[in-house]
Amino acid sequence: MKDNHEKCLELANRIYDLDAKVYDCVGSALGRTFTGNRENTVQNLCMLMLAKPDGHLLRSELALISNMARTIPDKEAKDRMLAEYDSILKEIENLPDSFGKVDILDLTRAELNPTARKKLSENDHLVICISRTQGSAGNDIGFELADELHINYYDVEIFNQVLKRLEAEKGSVDDAETDHFTEFDKYKKKSFRLKTWFREFNRYHGLPRQDAIFFNMSDLICNLARTEDCVIMGRCADSILANNHIPHISLFISAPFTLRVRRIMASKNMDLKQASRFLRQMDRQHKRYYDFYTDGRWGRPESYDLCINSANYGIRETIDLIERMINQKRN
Amino acid sequence: MKDNHEKCLELANRIYDLDAKVYDCVGSALGRTFTGNRENTVQNLCMLMLAKPDGHLLRSELALISNMARTIPDKEAKDRMLAEYDSILKEIENLPDSFGKVDILDLTRAELNPTARKKLSENDHLVICISRTQGSAGNDIGFELADELHINYYDVEIFNQVLKRLEAEKGSVDDAETDHFTEFDKYKKKSFRLKTWFREFNRYHGLPRQDAIFFNMSDLICNLARTEDCVIMGRCADSILANNHIPHISLFISAPFTLRVRRIMASKNMDLKQASRFLRQMDRQHKRYYDFYTDGRWGRPESYDLCINSANYGIRETIDLIERMINQKRN
Repeated sequence: MKDNHEKCLELANRIYDLDAKVYDCVGSALGRTFTGNRENTVQNLCMLMLAKPDGHLLRSELALISNMARTIPDKEAKDRMLAEYDSILKEIENLPDSFGKVDILDLTRAELNPTARKKLSENDHLVICISRTQGSAGNDIGFELADELHINYYDVEIFNQVLKRLEAEKGSVDDAETDHFTEFDKYKKKSFRLKTWFREFNRYHGLPRQDAIFFNMSDLICNLARTEDCVIMGRCADSILANNHIPHISLFISAPFTLRVRRIMASKNMDLKQASRFLRQMDRQHKRYYDFYTDGRWGRPESYDLCINSANYGIRETIDLIERMINQKRN
Repeated sequence: MKDNHEKCLELANRIYDLDAKVYDCVGSALGRTFTGNRENTVQNLCMLMLAKPDGHLLRSELALISNMARTIPDKEAKDRMLAEYDSILKEIENLPDSFGKVDILDLTRAELNPTARKKLSENDHLVICISRTQGSAGNDIGFELADELHINYYDVEIFNQVLKRLEAEKGSVDDAETDHFTEFDKYKKKSFRLKTWFREFNRYHGLPRQDAIFFNMSDLICNLARTEDCVIMGRCADSILANNHIPHISLFISAPFTLRVRRIMASKNMDLKQASRFLRQMDRQHKRYYDFYTDGRWGRPESYDLCINSANYGIRETIDLIERMINQKRN
């Protein structure tokens, strides 16, 4: 602690001098960063280094100086100042409890996230889970992305068809013609007639129907992610894979409501009122489904690796952005 | 329309044949995609192409075939099938109202978004606006990002110091020692005493104090963004720049609450209860401030270009990700 304090004193003096030198070079209209006398300033800087582990204010003081230094007209002097600034910054970062010392990293999650690593490891597959709001072109983006990466694409229709075939002979879960959300809502509304309920109870080994569907879906998703590169649309795949410690990228694609309405009107030939009602209903159903089957909250940034506003990119650029992020840009 | 229908008929037949050929090659356990007879299947496919502008289901049928084709062991046959698949896909995409035809692109916003374009234009500057939740390491990320890109870094302390100096002689807005949020809350709670209110009314040319601060801040932010590359933390800079049609990237950095609490406990030496209360309060204040001064909703993916879950990357990898995104990776 003792020599830590001396170290801080020395750094504080260097910072004070740098500020003075930079000011001499640039003669900024804003004047010096430190207007007080050396003694007080140095004391305050020491305090910031020693007492403020998150170094929030110290960082701002330093940034003020370097911002000013970058405006020095004379290149030679400028480089000299920035070099001194860099060396001071390095030493501060090496102080115990300096800013940036306490990471936010969640190692267990980051290890599942291929975009958080330089490259995929040998046995891992590139699995891209895409959740999206209806009308944000998430499906178009996922489909074209898979096509460009030459990997498989799975959405609810495909899962239903695959499950239908896998389960056909068992005469078990078959929801090819039913929509998960309707199923799910029906269940939540507890609007079964007892007879129906009892028949389904037996049929699905005691599991509520849509839970049986969800669990079959989960197995299928895990098997896929373990054996091939693919793009998986929705189905809470991100959360399912995370719970099974299978590497994947989780993306959420959305766009402002008004733009989604405009797009749905164009793509589904609906009028404004129909499109708005349709989107609100779909958002409600997506949210209810995701929040029921996962720990996360649907559409919240902290539930995914990345959220993309597709309206600010468009379909083509969103795909490029994703490819850039996963270092798989082909063309 | 007439020959469009013939075109669809031809494509439908090619799709049906491709499915059959792929099945012969792979002998998939799942059987063929189309189990019905040619006539019905072709009719249905035509319907999908003609009647479903968003082509949602058609796309799934095609994906099923190509997914299967990729599993063909014999490379030569596989390439032949995928080539046929690609040519069919191309022709379908060229149909009027095919899927992917209706973009979600918001041109006015995308034109302001450098990451949505191959490169920055000559006179534009690289302005990175970072909103973040407290404790998600957003500041550390912004500061180090600016340092690596050798561009200026601005956060609330720096803005306050700059404003303080700019406004000093005018004896005008000076909030170096006041926190915007506290100011803001005070105002919203309308807890001024009339005398105070009247003095401030005159002092700020008839504007409520924190509005005067906000408007000075806005001018400063616009001037910066027009003249230099920089990283700007918070201050609703994204929305301010968008309203002034100044190009910028808007990022939102967040992390799960529990991890933010853990980090705040470590970096601010708080106990669990203090940290949780502190974060809830900060989130409330950020939200109130952002929602009051912008059209967007704080922390919602559709309010930014991109949201990053810093917990799934960590500080270092988040910076790399952003650099990759803006094509400015230096090392």
